[in-house]
Amino acid sequence: MSPNKTIGILGGGQLAKMLAAAAADLGFNINIYCPDRDCPAAQVANKMVLGNYDDDKNLVAFVKNVDVLTYEFENIDIKALEELEPLVDIRPSIKALKISQDRYTEKSYLNSLGIKTTQFYRIDEVSDIEKLFIKLKKSMLIKTRRLGYDGKGQVLIKTQVDIKEHFLRKKLSPCIAEELITFDRELSVIIVRDKEGNIKTFEPGENVHEHGILVTTTLPSSMSEALKNDATMIAKKIVDDLGYIGVMGVEFFLKEHELYVNEIAPRVHNSGHWTMDGSYSSQFQQHIRAIMDLPLLSTERHSDIVMYNLIGKVTSNLVNNELAKIYIYGKKHSRPGRKMGHVNLIKKKGS
Amino acid sequence: MSPNKTIGILGGGQLAKMLAAAAADLGFNINIYCPDRDCPAAQVANKMVLGNYDDDKNLVAFVKNVDVLTYEFENIDIKALEELEPLVDIRPSIKALKISQDRYTEKSYLNSLGIKTTQFYRIDEVSDIEKLFIKLKKSMLIKTRRLGYDGKGQVLIKTQVDIKEHFLRKKLSPCIAEELITFDRELSVIIVRDKEGNIKTFEPGENVHEHGILVTTTLPSSMSEALKNDATMIAKKIVDDLGYIGVMGVEFFLKEHELYVNEIAPRVHNSGHWTMDGSYSSQFQQHIRAIMDLPLLSTERHSDIVMYNLIGKVTSNLVNNELAKIYIYGKKHSRPGRKMGHVNLIKKKGS
Repeated sequence: MSPNKTIGILGGGQLAKMLAAAAADLGFNINIYCPDRDCPAAQVANKMVLGNYDDDKNLVAFVKNVDVLTYEFENIDIKALEELEPLVDIRPSIKALKISQDRYTEKSYLNSLGIKTTQFYRIDEVSDIEKLFIKLKKSMLIKTRRLGYDGKGQVLIKTQVDIKEHFLRKKLSPCIAEELITFDRELSVIIVRDKEGNIKTFEPGENVHEHGILVTTTLPSSMSEALKNDATMIAKKIVDDLGYIGVMGVEFFLKEHELYVNEIAPRVHNSGHWTMDGSYSSQFQQHIRAIMDLPLLSTERHSDIVMYNLIGKVTSNLVNNELAKIYIYGKKHSRPGRKMGHVNLIKKKGS
Repeated sequence: MSPNKTIGILGGGQLAKMLAAAAADLGFNINIYCPDRDCPAAQVANKMVLGNYDDDKNLVAFVKNVDVLTYEFENIDIKALEELEPLVDIRPSIKALKISQDRYTEKSYLNSLGIKTTQFYRIDEVSDIEKLFIKLKKSMLIKTRRLGYDGKGQVLIKTQVDIKEHFLRKKLSPCIAEELITFDRELSVIIVRDKEGNIKTFEPGENVHEHGILVTTTLPSSMSEALKNDATMIAKKIVDDLGYIGVMGVEFFLKEHELYVNEIAPRVHNSGHWTMDGSYSSQFQQHIRAIMDLPLLSTERHSDIVMYNLIGKVTSNLVNNELAKIYIYGKKHSRPGRKMGHVNLIKKKGS
């Protein structure tokens, strides 16, 4: 067990913090690489290295002291990572990261596996948006191909005026256009796969987003067993195809009993935070076990549970509930829309 | 919630490590005071201060940067702590620490509350041992009044030769003598009390010791509900009398349906490690909540569970059990009898 091995994590946010705590439980050393000295993960790490994610030289020095490198977010410079690949085990692999960094590549990849996504179109110039809008004659969502998260980088187009207002005389980043569809429900599958191909999945949770930001995940979901099973099988198909190692979050939309994958996240995922208090293992423990070649744990759920994100200025009356497990990330500054913590509210089984 | 408050912990072992992780979850800063730079808690602390526990000057500097001071072990110099008392909130209080540091004081205190202990005798000189042995005409256990733990500082006297062998021409530390009684069972109560006097208790676990070292704690225990209730009421009497703040471990012996308190630990306790995976809250979370004036959580147990200590050289075949939650403390050196980690093996409810 853990003969003094060191895990390097790129990123120092709440996901890195919770990964670091899970790794510490197993006796692993944790080194964090992050540009912000006051990041949440610094608190629970053995070592903190300050640096930018495209600073090759600094990154090379960082990985020299780690046995396995993992990451907590997907917007990492692929070129920098490729330089590190000969020096250290990167888990999950660069391939998964590459696919998930670009919405166009991601959806194309999913479709190539026979997995449904919403209808999407490649947008390279503003004129592409205009042409498509005239052709489709309906509202569409323009999303940057890269660097979008928590609803950022998205514009809703309902009229030609919207196009002018948002895009005219502006330099357009490569985008995709998606038809605007109202979905019935959202769910996600948190899945983990190890090097040997062993797979465990947590029961799919039902998500509610507001303004593109996750606000709650609820277990059990209102989905049928058949749909939950379908979602799980889709997630398995993806991690198997990628030869994936670690935890992945797969987000689904549900419309009229049809599942669409919205996006995949090659990392632990906000919609898996309920596992810390509702399951026999947490997604953070599973990720650390998978990347360190330790046997995976049971993902069985022992309790009904609702995860609430604490967003922006934190005011929660849950603090007085004796079944409310509160997590505060320790971010120095709050901003509207910023995730400051979460609460796992246990609703006992069968209640 | 946790407006940047800092908790200071005296001691850097596994208990401090698990306290620090629980505090980090709530967004508190953690400063560790410990003489060993490589101590387990250093990994998950914001700050590590090296120093000896009787170094008044260093301790005073340490507490200047903390809002609340707590500790993970009871053998701390009381005089040094008393100097700190005007400078910082010390939780639990020095009073509880003082009582538990000395077996004679502890048992006398318990008896004064009407709580049963084994019969004990004060031993100040070797001649006291001889006189007592002649009078009682039976085996007895000589224990140092102070600084004993994990079976250390204990000698079994069966014959007068034993007395000569162990004590003749040696300087005797103040001791107590206890009649040697074979108990049927051992159990412990983990109890938490906050400043307002709110109390929560975890279900009593059944303990097995070998050579004075805890090896397993099992939930549920084989005790009757009535006995569990009696043990809980005794623990409540103690924390109420002390006006205690924080978690306390109370160890009991059971003989012929009669409960005897063996010792009290004014801190989180090894026999409470099962709470990390078998209960809706852990003893570590509860201790941090109590000392930081946050509402206590539910202590309800959601699963049957056995806690195994990993002692000395760690070899465990539990590593392949998907319901075995393994904790490795990260101690740099293993020694026979040294606690290196523990495993919480979940036995599902009703199984």
